[in-house]
Amino acid sequence: MATITPVDDPADPRVTDFRDLTTADRRPDRPGGRGLVIAEGVVVVRRLLESPYPVRSLLGVRRRFDELADDLAGVDVPAYATDAETMATVVGFHLNRGVLAVADRAAPPDVHALVRDARLVAVLEGVNDHENLGALFRNAAALGVDAVLLGPRCADPLYRRSVRVSMGHVLRVPFAELPGPWPASLDVLRAAGLRVVALTPAADAQPLAAAGERTALLLGAEGPGLTPDALAAADSRMRIPMASGVDSLNVATAAAVAFHALAPL
Amino acid sequence: MATITPVDDPADPRVTDFRDLTTADRRPDRPGGRGLVIAEGVVVVRRLLESPYPVRSLLGVRRRFDELADDLAGVDVPAYATDAETMATVVGFHLNRGVLAVADRAAPPDVHALVRDARLVAVLEGVNDHENLGALFRNAAALGVDAVLLGPRCADPLYRRSVRVSMGHVLRVPFAELPGPWPASLDVLRAAGLRVVALTPAADAQPLAAAGERTALLLGAEGPGLTPDALAAADSRMRIPMASGVDSLNVATAAAVAFHALAPL
Repeated sequence: MATITPVDDPADPRVTDFRDLTTADRRPDRPGGRGLVIAEGVVVVRRLLESPYPVRSLLGVRRRFDELADDLAGVDVPAYATDAETMATVVGFHLNRGVLAVADRAAPPDVHALVRDARLVAVLEGVNDHENLGALFRNAAALGVDAVLLGPRCADPLYRRSVRVSMGHVLRVPFAELPGPWPASLDVLRAAGLRVVALTPAADAQPLAAAGERTALLLGAEGPGLTPDALAAADSRMRIPMASGVDSLNVATAAAVAFHALAPL
Repeated sequence: MATITPVDDPADPRVTDFRDLTTADRRPDRPGGRGLVIAEGVVVVRRLLESPYPVRSLLGVRRRFDELADDLAGVDVPAYATDAETMATVVGFHLNRGVLAVADRAAPPDVHALVRDARLVAVLEGVNDHENLGALFRNAAALGVDAVLLGPRCADPLYRRSVRVSMGHVLRVPFAELPGPWPASLDVLRAAGLRVVALTPAADAQPLAAAGERTALLLGAEGPGLTPDALAAADSRMRIPMASGVDSLNVATAAAVAFHALAPL
């Protein structure tokens, strides 16, 4: 059972993890230099508490801890209760959602284990926008994607904004960096029996359709899309049929359309 | 050919349409009390110039007018050239995109004409978030939706943020308010030979699949979804198969998945 401890002084050292979040949540002093995992709001805090990430502490107003009572019953972490004003002083801005939790990163899952029985995997290249990445994880969670693999130049899924936009689903959908030189590293997917399908707006790609196979869907950044090397490394290429004169869909939206078309659900 | 006129004084009355946009772009003094149409950035300004909306003027830095030279060649509107600093003072914030255009609203298209030959129409109920609405129009444009009809409690597609998030596609996809009492007003769609399909997360709805028919897709707000009255008024109900424990997709994303599944492209 989490212990709820009142905190009145914004300078209290026990709430240091929550201090000045707009500037401090990329913490170069943490392992890997990529900061703590911060969850904002009841829904996302709940997902963090259910996740494999080791929660360090919570900070919030009483009313939010009341909402989280059942979730906190099974965990042994300090929960610091304060008022909205003190919380805003600590965090550095006014936080409507009224509750935060902070966790350490966990060791990433093993890629071979992730893909062994996966039916649908998303593989990202250059998805370097935190909001797009968060939205993509939300869509992956909803549409039955078993794992997300990060190729080169992707943003950090555990950055605070990604966590928030994903509604906490980055804490729920397993992900890992794909090791080895890109795009040869895609061979690990083929070795596991997955067909590597690149999503591209190229006119000569096949219209998106269920492949009836276990699939690794290769997705590039909005704008530039997949690199020629990545496209060449795929087993096949699919496109979303689009009206003429429209540049493209947002990458997370395009991913959702493709996840639905290919999904095992 | 647009005349490019230098403006140095932020108080110049010729740029009044662009003044203090964060507070002034809901203008109760305009017809209908819903403001001018504001386009931000080269891409969206280009779409406004191509649209049926009567453009009043442009304000921007020289470099952006150079980019728009071909688009401006055929139009006869004043273009006020200034520096980034003066522009920020007029607009009330620093505008990275460097060019704005303003237009009056046009008379909405006739609903009967819009639906007569449409193959796929989106009908919205309570989509009251400007960003979701803008994103929905972007997806509608990309995925071949012929028209958008607004039921009760929808946001204004021509509000500045909607225009921006849509990347200007609200200026391209025809839309109109559905007249008459809701949801009986849906009869106009049936009379035009469209099948009215409600998108809902309800477990007893059919999984989303191409219907092989001309379709009016009924979409509700993220969160509450469609009202029971709207659901009851539909000819059939479809759902996007979703993983358990996931609340829902964003409404614009759900719409994209459904547009793709039902689209004539």
